[in-house]
Amino acid sequence: MSVHLVGAGPGNPGLITIRGLDLLRTCDVVVYDRLVAPELVDEAPVDAIRIAREPHTQSEINELLVGYARAGFDVVRLKGGDPFVFGRGGEEAIALTGAGVEFETVPGVSALSAAPAAAGIPITHRGLASQVTLVTAHCSREGQRPDYASLARTPGTLVFFMALRALEEIAAELIAHGLNPTTPAAAIASGTLPEQRSVVAALAEIPAAAAELESPVLLVVGDVVSLADRLRPIASLAPALSPR
Amino acid sequence: MSVHLVGAGPGNPGLITIRGLDLLRTCDVVVYDRLVAPELVDEAPVDAIRIAREPHTQSEINELLVGYARAGFDVVRLKGGDPFVFGRGGEEAIALTGAGVEFETVPGVSALSAAPAAAGIPITHRGLASQVTLVTAHCSREGQRPDYASLARTPGTLVFFMALRALEEIAAELIAHGLNPTTPAAAIASGTLPEQRSVVAALAEIPAAAAELESPVLLVVGDVVSLADRLRPIASLAPALSPR
Repeated sequence: MSVHLVGAGPGNPGLITIRGLDLLRTCDVVVYDRLVAPELVDEAPVDAIRIAREPHTQSEINELLVGYARAGFDVVRLKGGDPFVFGRGGEEAIALTGAGVEFETVPGVSALSAAPAAAGIPITHRGLASQVTLVTAHCSREGQRPDYASLARTPGTLVFFMALRALEEIAAELIAHGLNPTTPAAAIASGTLPEQRSVVAALAEIPAAAAELESPVLLVVGDVVSLADRLRPIASLAPALSPR
Repeated sequence: MSVHLVGAGPGNPGLITIRGLDLLRTCDVVVYDRLVAPELVDEAPVDAIRIAREPHTQSEINELLVGYARAGFDVVRLKGGDPFVFGRGGEEAIALTGAGVEFETVPGVSALSAAPAAAGIPITHRGLASQVTLVTAHCSREGQRPDYASLARTPGTLVFFMALRALEEIAAELIAHGLNPTTPAAAIASGTLPEQRSVVAALAEIPAAAAELESPVLLVVGDVVSLADRLRPIASLAPALSPR
């Protein structure tokens, strides 16, 4: 009995790891997040049990993972991005450990650098940013908000996850706490997918510039965004997976 | 003519992406970093040209990439971790754009969360850390040092790359600037590889505790390290790659 906490990557199905895809192709049960590519869920064996994460609470998911593992099934918990970068993988791991269920973690490519890279932005760059701060803009259960006063003084690049609904707050608070309103910013929707869209603007203008983007959106704030004009990757990540 | 900037992942060869391995298996030329798994370099076609990064300067590498692409070769630039997380991928991308060479970036799993996860540590966890700061401890060409005063006040988790030789400086400076000397810390060497070793200790004790580790070492500082006792993944990431 075992559970594999597998990162599905940032969106494009070709960005799952070799190890993750191998496990997925041989599992008995797959429990998958809403933002995981449907092409990846299709890679599970045809007779595998498929369970969508969305309608369940976190504790229900924990119970499902423990229950199927104890029943002798090989379970893949397929999570968007990386299980431990704002992925709540730790909560599931603690529940599994507490229940005496063996588990393995298979990390994934996080959107944190993959989405900016797909928009031509390196989150680190010599002379521009030797430090990166990752923040989730999604309200936590505790109602915590990011420490904007501290973030406004932080050197390097700021990366906000799940930023769409918080764009106005983020821009207004960072500027109110002293960050230059002309600091370059980029909002990237559906990074690495064919439907990816991104906008680049000064921090003060980014909420308006990003008005028509759809979730999920990653926000990048910092001088590295100014490189977007000089780095133009051919945006042709092949979504196809190799045959089994 | 094209160049693919491919992240090889954090060390374990099974953690390269599907897209990255596909490109590697069909390339004409592979230019690879020192920390890339030899098993991955072996995946290039037998008649592919193999070039080690190490003996060359960055500008020589840039010239090689441009030269081989212009000569009509399909080039994979295989970089440790993710090309844009302290990977200098931006410099190579700018050189390629400047020379009119098309390129594609294929992100990789960064050690930033993969190495801690392999040691049982989630870098984010609800209630413990909703923010992560990534810092390179490696001296940059400009001789810049991390802004320890700012880092000591930063909430959430701190992750230092290439930290081995700087462990004493990091611990001493963070404590001198007010971080609690009992803050939990973990040093992870060769994360995700069979030879992985890690130590957990209070920040004040981590330089001594990590004295016998060998490079590359990732240092994690923050309350999430306290979860390492409760999260025990089965450390059995299979290094084998699927047959072609």
